[in-house]
Parts: sequence; structure tokens; C-alpha cells
Amino acid sequence: MQRALSVHRSDGARSNFPNWYQAVVREADMAETSPVRGSMIIKPWGYGVWELIQKALDRRIKETGHDNCYFPLFIPLSFIAKEASHVEGFAKEMAVVTHHRLKNIDGKLQPDPESKLEEPLVVRPTSETIIGDAFSRWIKSHRDLPLLINQWANVVRWEMRTRLFLRTAEFLWQEGHTAHAGAEDAMEETLRILEIYREFAEGVLAMPVIAGEKSENERFPGAVNTYSIEAMMQDGKALQAGTSHYLGTHFAQAQNIRFQNEAGEHVLCHTTSWGVSTRLIGGGIMTHGDDDGLQLPPAIAPRQVVIVPMLRGKPEDADVLGYCEAIVNALRRENAFGEPIRVLLDAKDIKSADKRWNWVRRGAPIIVEVGPRDMANDAVTYMRRDQLRDGDKVRSHGIERERFVSDAGALLTEIQTRLYSEARTRLTSNIHSGVKTFAELKEYFGAAADEDEATEFKGWVRASWADPKGAALDKIEEQLKSLKLSIRNAPMDQSGSHTPCIFTGEKGVEEILIARAY
Amino acid sequence: MQRALSVHRSDGARSNFPNWYQAVVREADMAETSPVRGSMIIKPWGYGVWELIQKALDRRIKETGHDNCYFPLFIPLSFIAKEASHVEGFAKEMAVVTHHRLKNIDGKLQPDPESKLEEPLVVRPTSETIIGDAFSRWIKSHRDLPLLINQWANVVRWEMRTRLFLRTAEFLWQEGHTAHAGAEDAMEETLRILEIYREFAEGVLAMPVIAGEKSENERFPGAVNTYSIEAMMQDGKALQAGTSHYLGTHFAQAQNIRFQNEAGEHVLCHTTSWGVSTRLIGGGIMTHGDDDGLQLPPAIAPRQVVIVPMLRGKPEDADVLGYCEAIVNALRRENAFGEPIRVLLDAKDIKSADKRWNWVRRGAPIIVEVGPRDMANDAVTYMRRDQLRDGDKVRSHGIERERFVSDAGALLTEIQTRLYSEARTRLTSNIHSGVKTFAELKEYFGAAADEDEATEFKGWVRASWADPKGAALDKIEEQLKSLKLSIRNAPMDQSGSHTPCIFTGEKGVEEILIARAY
Repeated sequence: MQRALSVHRSDGARSNFPNWYQAVVREADMAETSPVRGSMIIKPWGYGVWELIQKALDRRIKETGHDNCYFPLFIPLSFIAKEASHVEGFAKEMAVVTHHRLKNIDGKLQPDPESKLEEPLVVRPTSETIIGDAFSRWIKSHRDLPLLINQWANVVRWEMRTRLFLRTAEFLWQEGHTAHAGAEDAMEETLRILEIYREFAEGVLAMPVIAGEKSENERFPGAVNTYSIEAMMQDGKALQAGTSHYLGTHFAQAQNIRFQNEAGEHVLCHTTSWGVSTRLIGGGIMTHGDDDGLQLPPAIAPRQVVIVPMLRGKPEDADVLGYCEAIVNALRRENAFGEPIRVLLDAKDIKSADKRWNWVRRGAPIIVEVGPRDMANDAVTYMRRDQLRDGDKVRSHGIERERFVSDAGALLTEIQTRLYSEARTRLTSNIHSGVKTFAELKEYFGAAADEDEATEFKGWVRASWADPKGAALDKIEEQLKSLKLSIRNAPMDQSGSHTPCIFTGEKGVEEILIARAY
Repeated sequence: MQRALSVHRSDGARSNFPNWYQAVVREADMAETSPVRGSMIIKPWGYGVWELIQKALDRRIKETGHDNCYFPLFIPLSFIAKEASHVEGFAKEMAVVTHHRLKNIDGKLQPDPESKLEEPLVVRPTSETIIGDAFSRWIKSHRDLPLLINQWANVVRWEMRTRLFLRTAEFLWQEGHTAHAGAEDAMEETLRILEIYREFAEGVLAMPVIAGEKSENERFPGAVNTYSIEAMMQDGKALQAGTSHYLGTHFAQAQNIRFQNEAGEHVLCHTTSWGVSTRLIGGGIMTHGDDDGLQLPPAIAPRQVVIVPMLRGKPEDADVLGYCEAIVNALRRENAFGEPIRVLLDAKDIKSADKRWNWVRRGAPIIVEVGPRDMANDAVTYMRRDQLRDGDKVRSHGIERERFVSDAGALLTEIQTRLYSEARTRLTSNIHSGVKTFAELKEYFGAAADEDEATEFKGWVRASWADPKGAALDKIEEQLKSLKLSIRNAPMDQSGSHTPCIFTGEKGVEEILIARAY
């Protein structure tokens, strides 16, 4: 079948999935690699999606009492050194600023040796240390708690193997940082945010996820508990799409974040941190894309309806354009998801068939084509991106103009719901609970362990385990790693009874998800 | 007179103005210095103002056809080296990343020598070079033009003397970058943006400005023409609040940005760039603040109305709170500037008098105090921050609740207008055109040239000049510098006739503004 995209997912064997992903990002004009190793350029269509993600999530963060701030990009090296486990987790991948001036020396522009900094500065990989330092100054009494802060910022983690949106040296994110009087309150916050992330991923990105707790070895460096939402991509791999950490008093200890309680004692705060990033965009692409390119859930589509006029370089073109403009204006007065519909009239001077396929590849939810005949009939012809084809053919619908306009909001909601339920079905029908032992696990995921990329869609395994710690856990995770598998999380939603531990046969106490992952 | 702020402007002698500014920023809880030299922490109230600035300006940028993108934070050194005049202008103040890993060596965390980068990376001081590189790939034909891009980002310029919001090593800004087929189109864009900045500064920040062209020596490094908006602070100094540059084909040449024109030739694009930053917040503070602290124009006040309940720790407190909540809900259904009124019920557990003064210092436009008596009368008592005092006394108004709610939007508009016209009067009545020679100029600005800060409010001088170039201009600017003066710009709005050049007595051809400046 002829497809809009140059590279396909190859639905049966998934070996082509990474190439397909790259092709979607490129051909949907979302982002591109930059001349700076590992850093991406987010193009207007991709950045438009990020702006909508920001807006929807920012509203949720503010509604739960968090204030936005902005903290410095640079972190003094000594701050990083304060929290030992934090250093361990991040020290390997930070950009370090050592000079503050360039100079022309022997005809070559280079760092001026005389501008060497006394203390090197690290480009923030995350901001616990510098925000914790501010908290230690801001918090005096129990009346100052809880302190609930968020920031939208760029961060840098030096990565060797990068992939647009999924893993880049520089990325954009939000990072929440909060301080509380007690463990219970801090844990409540940690889980409140986890739930916001879940609801946001499912309700806005139409990306179903499983929320749960990470294993001891997969915690954020310095955290007591780390929770995540995990989404299933179309190659069956898991994508960690957001994390929320209860940090106990570790960072409070390192940064001296204390408050005077009602008894007059100066005690340590309990802190949390949590974040989601531009990685969500990669998750959305791998959840909804198809062999015609990207499909954007209407809630995050920068343009929900695109109108392509069929122009022929003839005098009647002006009438067609006028007719299209009237539709644009009418649609802008209609709402979808509580906001005016985002509509574009694509009047660019290129062939209308090319424009149509551009918007198919970019995943605009509704693409409308309007020619002289539509105008004569007071009608429009539209395509739903989520139901683009009928067998080999492109499926389009003729409809009375007024009815199209009045139904557009409901149609966008329907598309959003349909994308979600399709992904939901994929997730739930591909979590397998029939795998009971490590031998069965090995057999289930099979030979792919020896290859660079899984070739078959295997989904995830949900199994009971004995929740081992320390060396026993290390050994299990080593074994899983040899199969390119990992424990994704222990879902919040646990069933009541447990089969024996998949690794040891001991009494099972908890269910976990095992999968290949990004 | 007792004032809410600890440090005053000392209206007569202005020597205290810098201390007053620092006090406002601190006591209004807008921002603070950070442990990172020259970088600030923008606190929730300050960041809230920035978010409103972003929202209002972003709408204007998008409405004129610009798309938002995101480009890398790091710029390869070789990119910077490409445009010679650009290097000259920025090379002295850039943060340079030289390593990508930390390592514990001899018990001390430090940059790992083995992680030294082959090519150092510069933290962007501005993005002409890296965006130009992308333009050279994105632009092929005249059909791709104009290309209109903007980004909201952090940038770093290593500064020795820093002041919160006004001059910091790291700051937040938007930078627009556009490419056009011809000089005329690019110049039109440059001036369109200048006008957007003017309208935005005056309409949203209530900060009147003079738009004009910078002198040859004050241009952006590499620009053909630089335009600015200049605002008058309450110490009479000028603040450059936004710039728009026509870059000719300089950057296109350096980055090879070419397009195929209709004749099939590959010719250079004409480019522009333009930006405003968190400096605008400093400008707003120095335009509207008084000895009671900050005054926020309602359009950029994160909370336009703050309700302070008078609680006494008695059972009737619950009724007062309920009454206040009803007012909050009613106000949120009212609009100001086309959006729901932003209202806060400050129910914190501190004394209501302290709360009142907190909000006075923070500059909330309307502060409402509600006690049992107000409730009994179905009324409220409010203060206008812009008319806080009647002589020594605080002026408050009792008003029927319903009327307060229905009039609130109009009252906020009135406050916005009044702040603007007060600042407008200050600007227009303090631009002096009676100074005709350099000797008079010297006499007018007087002895202050020898001091660190001007002590008297002198405003600006508007004078004619012969528009000299090269060495003649250098000499004039040297002379002005010795008086701590500079040419701010040549206003767009020129009068028809000119007196002789203030510097040379030659025939005057243009009017310029001369002032002390930030």
C-alpha cells in the first residue's frame, strides 16, 4: 500500500521501528539534529506541541498550589559535591563551564586562560541542590510549609547515544520541588503529582500509562522512593514518561533545610521532586504514529483543523479562498476541549495534493479540502487523520458546511477518545501474566536478547516477586539486563493475591512489570 | 512620613535610588541574588510578572506570523568565530563549556581531564549564529521566505557588575530571527517589531518609551541598523528596554543563508533579529515603584485584587472567610483586559495588618480588607495601590459589595491608565530641548559627572546634531562618556526643522536623545 511516509513500522516484524520513528520526526517536521552533538532543534510544529503540553500541565500544577520560579542554569561544583549519592548518579554526564571569556590567541579564538573560574560551574542536570539551598534560606517556621515550587527550564545531561525527544543532551522539562513538615505530607505530595501525571498523560496526550513505584536500584540518585508512569510504545517497549520522588530528609540534610516546629525545635524538612520533559513528545509519536506519519491527539495539535483550498491559478480562486476564510472564522468561534478550535488555512503557493500529504504526515486531526464544487454545494470535504484509509483508498467525507462547523468540536473530542482507547487496548491486551518463572520469561522474550533491537512485539510481563533488596536484587537486575529487560515499576494498582516470585519461587508479595524499555 | 518600604527614593536628591531599587526588589519578593555569581533567582511574584509579560508579548509575536522554536543552548566555538564583528562584540563575556564529566580525583570532585571537549562550546549569549546555520538549511527558494522565527530562552553574558533584572549574567528573553528576500522587506519587519515593542511597553507595562535608531557605535555587533525603545526611570536615567536589528546580509554571508530567486539565482537573504528580556521587569519597577514599594500595572499583576480577611481567632472567622470566598468567586466571573480578574484570598495565619503591608510592598493594584462589620453591611473596604495615601494617612474606601464586584474590571483599567499617564507626563515634561551646545550640555548635567551616581533628577536632552560618522562620532561619544552620558537614540518621530549640531555647530540634520543610562 502506498503510504505518506517513506519508512514504515513494518507491522509484523518491528525491526524497522527506530528508523520509522526517525522518519516520522523528520517528515512531520517536529525536530532535527543540530550541529551541537546531542542537542536538538525543536521546529515550530514540535514546539507548538510542547507549548500545549506546558499549558495543560502548568494549569494542573498551579491548581494544586504550586508557584513557578526560575533558578540559575549554573550550579557551583561544591553544591553538587554535597549530596554523595546524587554525585554518584549524575557525575558522569555533566557539562562543565570552566572559563568566562574567549580570546584570540595566535589567530585562533579560544578560552582565555586568564578567565579560568576559581570554581567550575556545572550546567544543571536537575536543580535539587540549588533549589534546596534557596529553601534553606526561605524556610524558617512551620508556617512556611509546605513550600511548593515548580520551574520550566532547560537541563543538560551529557548522553552518548541520543535520539530526538527521547534522549538528548539538552532537553526541556518542568521540575517541581517541594518541602514539607513531615514524611506523610511529603509522600502525599509525591503521589498527588504521580496522579496528575497519569491523568495528564491519559487525558491530554491520549497515552495510557501504568503508574507505580520503581525498584530500589532504579530510584533517582538520593531518593527514598521513586514513582513513575510507564507507557507502552508500538514496538512493545516501555517508555518512562514521568517521575515523582520522595526524597526523605537526604537533601534537607545536605542543604540544611530546617524549620522551627510548633514545639520550637529546628527539624529537617521532608522534600520531593518530580518532572516530565520533552520526552513526552517522543512518547506521543510512538504511541499514535502510523505508516502515514504522525497522528496528534487533538488536545495537543497546534492546528486541529487544516483547510486546504484547491486553487487552480484561475479567477475563481479568490471565491474559494473567501469561502475558506468564512469557514475558518466560523470554526474559531467553536470550542473543543473548552478552548476555541485551532484552525489554519494553508494558502501556500504549492500543490494542494502536496499540502494534503504534508498535513497527513504532520498528523493534523482533521484535514479539509475545499474546491469550487464544495463551494457550489455549500459543503466541505474532510478527512479524519485517525481513519484516513479504507483499505488502500483515502477516505473522505462530504458534509454540509454548517453542520461541519457545528460538529467540529464534537468530532475532535471523538478523535481524542478514539486515539486513547486504541492505545489503551494495545496496553491492556499486551500485559501478559501467564509467565511464571525466569525460564519462561527468557523463553517468552526469546532470542531477541542477542540482537540490537527486538524484532517482535512482545509487550510487557506482569509477575509477582518477593521484593528482594540489596545483593539479591542486584543479581536479578543483572539477569534481566542480559535479556535487555528491566523492572519498570510495581503498579499502584495491585491485585490481592500473588503467585510465587518469578525469580526465586519464594512467596510473592508484589506485582511488577518487566519489559524492554527506552 | 511612615512608609511601607525600609529604604526610600529620597525624592529630592536621587542618590539613594539604587538602594531604593534593591529594597523594592527584595521587599516586594520579586527576586534575589543567588550563590552563582551574577545569576538571580526569580521568585514566584517576579516570575508571575514575567509569565504575564510572556503571554501578552507572545500573542503579539504570533499574530504577526512568527512561529516559536527552540534552538540549542550551546554554540560551537567555530560558529561564533565566523562573524568577525559579532565576535568582537561578544567575545569578552561568554561562559565556555570545556569538559563533559566530573571525576573524583585525589578526593576532590573536578572536571575529568579525559572528558575535555575537542571543540569548546559557548553558552549562547544570543543565537544569530546557530539559528542562521539552521536557516541556511531550511531556506531553499523564495517560496520559503519570509521565514519568521522566535524563541523564549535563557542566555548568558558574563557581566562584572550585576543588578537584579537590569543586568545579570543569565537572563530570560525572547529572541526573534527572520530572513527575507530583500532589504525593504527586512527593514519593514525590523520596524514592525519596534512598533510592537513600543505598543507593548506602553499598553501592557504602562511604561512610556521613545522608539528610535541607535547611533553607529551603539549597534548590535554585526547589525546594519539597530533600533531601540528607551524608557525614563524615576531617577531620570534612560533604560534601553528592547532592540530590533536589521542585519543586512552580514549574517547571511557568514552562515551562507541563500535562496533561489524567481530568476533562478542563488542570492543572500536579508536577516533581522530582535529581543526583550527580564530587564523589562526592572524597568517596570523603576517606572512605577514608590516609597511604599512596588506598584504593578494591573495588566501584569499576578494578583490584581487581594482580599485580606480580618480574622480574630474567633468562631465568626468562618463567616468572614465564607463572605470573602463569595467575593473571590464573584470577581473571577468578572473580566479585566479581556480576561477573568486574577484574585487571591490571603488566608495565611499571620496578622492582617502585616498582610496588608505585604501586598502594598508587592504592589497589588487593589487590596481589600474585610471584617465582620463589612460583612454585616454587605460591603467591602478597599485601597487602591496607586492612590494609597491622603497626606500621611492611608486612604480606604467603603463600598457596597455588589458594586465593588461589578466595578472591579473598570477600576483596574482606570489604575492601568493612571499609572501610564503619570509616567507619560514624567517622560514628556523631562525631555529638555533648550540645551543647544556641548558647553550647555556639560553645565546642564553638571558636577554629577564626577560622582558614582547622579544626585539630581535631570531627565534627558533632545538636541539636533549633524549625524557624524567614524572618528568624529567616536570623539563625540568619548566626550559624552566623560560626562557619563550617551546618545540613546534618534527618535522615529522627528520634528521638521533642526537647530545647529549640539557638538559641532554644523548644520543639524537629526534630533537625538542624550541621557545618563542603565
